[in-house]
Amino acid sequence: MGRLTETLTKSLENVVGEAGLIRDSERMQSYLSDWRNAYRGEAALVVRPASTAEVAEVVRLCAQAGIALVPQGGNTGLCGGSIPDASGDQVVLSLTRMTQIRQVDPGNETITVEAGVILQRLQEAAAEAGRLFPLSLGAEGSCTVGGNLATNAGGTAVLRYGNMRDLTLGVEVVLPDGRIWNGLRGLRKDNTGYDLKQLFIGSEGTLGIITAAVLKLYPAVRSRTTAWVALPSTQAAVDLIGRMRGLCGDRLTGFELMSRQSVEFVLRHVAGCNDPFAEVHPWYVLIELSDTLLDAPLNEMLENGLGEAFEQGEALDAVVAGNETQVAALWKMREGISEAQNHEGPSLKHDISVPVSSIPAFIETADQQLQAAFPGVRIVAYGHVGDGNLHYNISKPVGSEDAPFKAQAEAIMHVIYDVTRAFAGSISAEHGLGQAKREAARRYKDPLDLELMRTLKQALDPAGLMNPGKLL
Amino acid sequence: MGRLTETLTKSLENVVGEAGLIRDSERMQSYLSDWRNAYRGEAALVVRPASTAEVAEVVRLCAQAGIALVPQGGNTGLCGGSIPDASGDQVVLSLTRMTQIRQVDPGNETITVEAGVILQRLQEAAAEAGRLFPLSLGAEGSCTVGGNLATNAGGTAVLRYGNMRDLTLGVEVVLPDGRIWNGLRGLRKDNTGYDLKQLFIGSEGTLGIITAAVLKLYPAVRSRTTAWVALPSTQAAVDLIGRMRGLCGDRLTGFELMSRQSVEFVLRHVAGCNDPFAEVHPWYVLIELSDTLLDAPLNEMLENGLGEAFEQGEALDAVVAGNETQVAALWKMREGISEAQNHEGPSLKHDISVPVSSIPAFIETADQQLQAAFPGVRIVAYGHVGDGNLHYNISKPVGSEDAPFKAQAEAIMHVIYDVTRAFAGSISAEHGLGQAKREAARRYKDPLDLELMRTLKQALDPAGLMNPGKLL
Repeated sequence: MGRLTETLTKSLENVVGEAGLIRDSERMQSYLSDWRNAYRGEAALVVRPASTAEVAEVVRLCAQAGIALVPQGGNTGLCGGSIPDASGDQVVLSLTRMTQIRQVDPGNETITVEAGVILQRLQEAAAEAGRLFPLSLGAEGSCTVGGNLATNAGGTAVLRYGNMRDLTLGVEVVLPDGRIWNGLRGLRKDNTGYDLKQLFIGSEGTLGIITAAVLKLYPAVRSRTTAWVALPSTQAAVDLIGRMRGLCGDRLTGFELMSRQSVEFVLRHVAGCNDPFAEVHPWYVLIELSDTLLDAPLNEMLENGLGEAFEQGEALDAVVAGNETQVAALWKMREGISEAQNHEGPSLKHDISVPVSSIPAFIETADQQLQAAFPGVRIVAYGHVGDGNLHYNISKPVGSEDAPFKAQAEAIMHVIYDVTRAFAGSISAEHGLGQAKREAARRYKDPLDLELMRTLKQALDPAGLMNPGKLL
Repeated sequence: MGRLTETLTKSLENVVGEAGLIRDSERMQSYLSDWRNAYRGEAALVVRPASTAEVAEVVRLCAQAGIALVPQGGNTGLCGGSIPDASGDQVVLSLTRMTQIRQVDPGNETITVEAGVILQRLQEAAAEAGRLFPLSLGAEGSCTVGGNLATNAGGTAVLRYGNMRDLTLGVEVVLPDGRIWNGLRGLRKDNTGYDLKQLFIGSEGTLGIITAAVLKLYPAVRSRTTAWVALPSTQAAVDLIGRMRGLCGDRLTGFELMSRQSVEFVLRHVAGCNDPFAEVHPWYVLIELSDTLLDAPLNEMLENGLGEAFEQGEALDAVVAGNETQVAALWKMREGISEAQNHEGPSLKHDISVPVSSIPAFIETADQQLQAAFPGVRIVAYGHVGDGNLHYNISKPVGSEDAPFKAQAEAIMHVIYDVTRAFAGSISAEHGLGQAKREAARRYKDPLDLELMRTLKQALDPAGLMNPGKLL
């Protein structure tokens, strides 16, 4: 790998202007660590191009000099994928000045945006056009479209609308040699060869830099209903989602599972949360139905489904939110879990997925093995049942110290990932690999998967200058 | 490329057994041309392995000997993608003995099938599990899942459910060197690196041989309504689909456009078809709404939407089918177009797509340029508005001869493809490239697209033995 020279720095400044270059160590800091401060690196320079042509020229100049590039969006990732290494030789390429909404095309149900557009701004632009852009996740106020594409972001609407990949019709990419690949097509059908955009989506900046995308829009939602349901088991959750989906089809837009342990932490630590039920139950789901129709009979549909579920013993108790305040209160319980867990000491987070039908056996097996090996650990299991995606997080036993628990982190992770593998699951459902899970991927992925990935990396980025040390 | 020897033939017979080998010239015939007899080739041998292990061994043996392989499914493709070349050196690898439905998993809403399963059999297996497998196209009684995957098949349900790619969670692939890549995962979320399955879907057998897939299931449909609507223009069709989608969301499962010319051919040549209207109108759409609910108020919804459309001048007249017989009669008019056109002499078929919002301008421009260059040609335009996919087919002028018209086929195609390119469209929306559109793809695709495709081909099939002469 090369090192940045004064001449190259001057050339880069000629491309992006003074406003696009950050050399000052103090001003660089926010680009060198993620929002949680979990990962930290050094950089020779931060470059902030304002157009695709500028990105292309920056990449071309760095490629010529053999300088490694780290593309960066809103810096909200959980796996350190956008943080440079410790060498100080890498250049951070921030896309945050590329904030144009290039086109809204209601007739084609598409919106074309640049990589630096904040997700929430994209959602608002869709709403202004009377449409919905469905991707929704905790960081939406600061994460960027480019990061969403690079990590194939998930979130709470995947059950109905799919991951970021499913929402994307076309992308514009600056290739590792600085050429611009124009895959910015707004077509729903195109069978003229390999679907190249799929390579770049989810590749975490290791094959090129996505600078813009054509994304799908959906009809606005005009009715919504939300329920909180107590269940006897995780099998009941799998049965109930099948029942509700069969009955309601795509009106089922949310189905979030929470263990009693998760809810207990929320009740203990999040102000204003109250258990909707007098009795304690082992599992809960939050169900959301929505419709494009005004005044769609969603409550009736929900009550029909729940009525059947009570008869079958799948549901033990239920409340349906009567107004927006109650809806917000129920979602607050779901969304408060992660924060609540932090009050109980270090939280070991695992973002896994298995086939939906394997969720009950996965949880039973993982719970047993963990309790056998690490008696007393508290398991905070929750997640998106319809996606098979569980946030299977672990807190220390009551009364124990942080340090010895943290020292067990890797051993605990291996137990969980071993069980995940046994159920043909994934060790990163929606957070990507970044630098955090690179080693784990080497251990848990099929060697042939890794070989094919390396073959593609070698073919498209033979010099290895695109976000080295991430993913692979 | 190598040539088949008696020793290798013996080795292949040891793998697949006598029943899996066809050497007899007469018995080979049906594997050497497509169902329309539009493409014809020769082969050294037809091999019909019955399991993934057998496919892998056949591929390994042929790779060692440098023999080119042509994978083949139901042989219903329209672009000659599964037909060997004229050399007689290639080996046809037919997947039609791989007909296992390996697993139906209602809890995961998935079905795992082998490549040789007929699409209709797959639809039936889904129905037996109380679910829907939505892919639907004319050849469904004989096309195979492997072919659907290799060509990323489309059809009439794409508006709501997407292409074959969107219906696929995992694939099992025999790589060009004979190793088996196990990408047969039933996960809705997996972000642990490049999404390798996307490479193989739609690659027409040029990167490996898909032997099985995990596919998504959907809730069964329990209500349906169908209408036939007369429109003043193609812009009205774009406006009306936006209106209906906004109102009905995903209940809108069909929206098929037909020009008066298309309908006239059907009325003239297809027995039992009658114009629902006394007056002649320039354009028609067939609208279908469906729902998972029994007795969903679809007629009311349809009438609300059409009421608004009449007020806005988007619709001129409409009939709603009152029973299944009338539904079938309306679909018969849509599905009869292709056959009806054959009665009017040779039909030059073009399967293009443009952004939905560009359909009106595309049709106006292409019509004008064609009539200027080839006066009197009859344009049969119809297709899936929501996908931007038009079957823009041309019949000869009234009273003219076949031969001079056929001689203009390439010039007519270039006019249409030039206009398609001007509107950022695709020259093959759902039929693939095969051998039919390979040259056209070279002319109409961005050279960088072709270069990237060649880079991938070179990386994954360096010996060039997988379906050579197709796609690239």
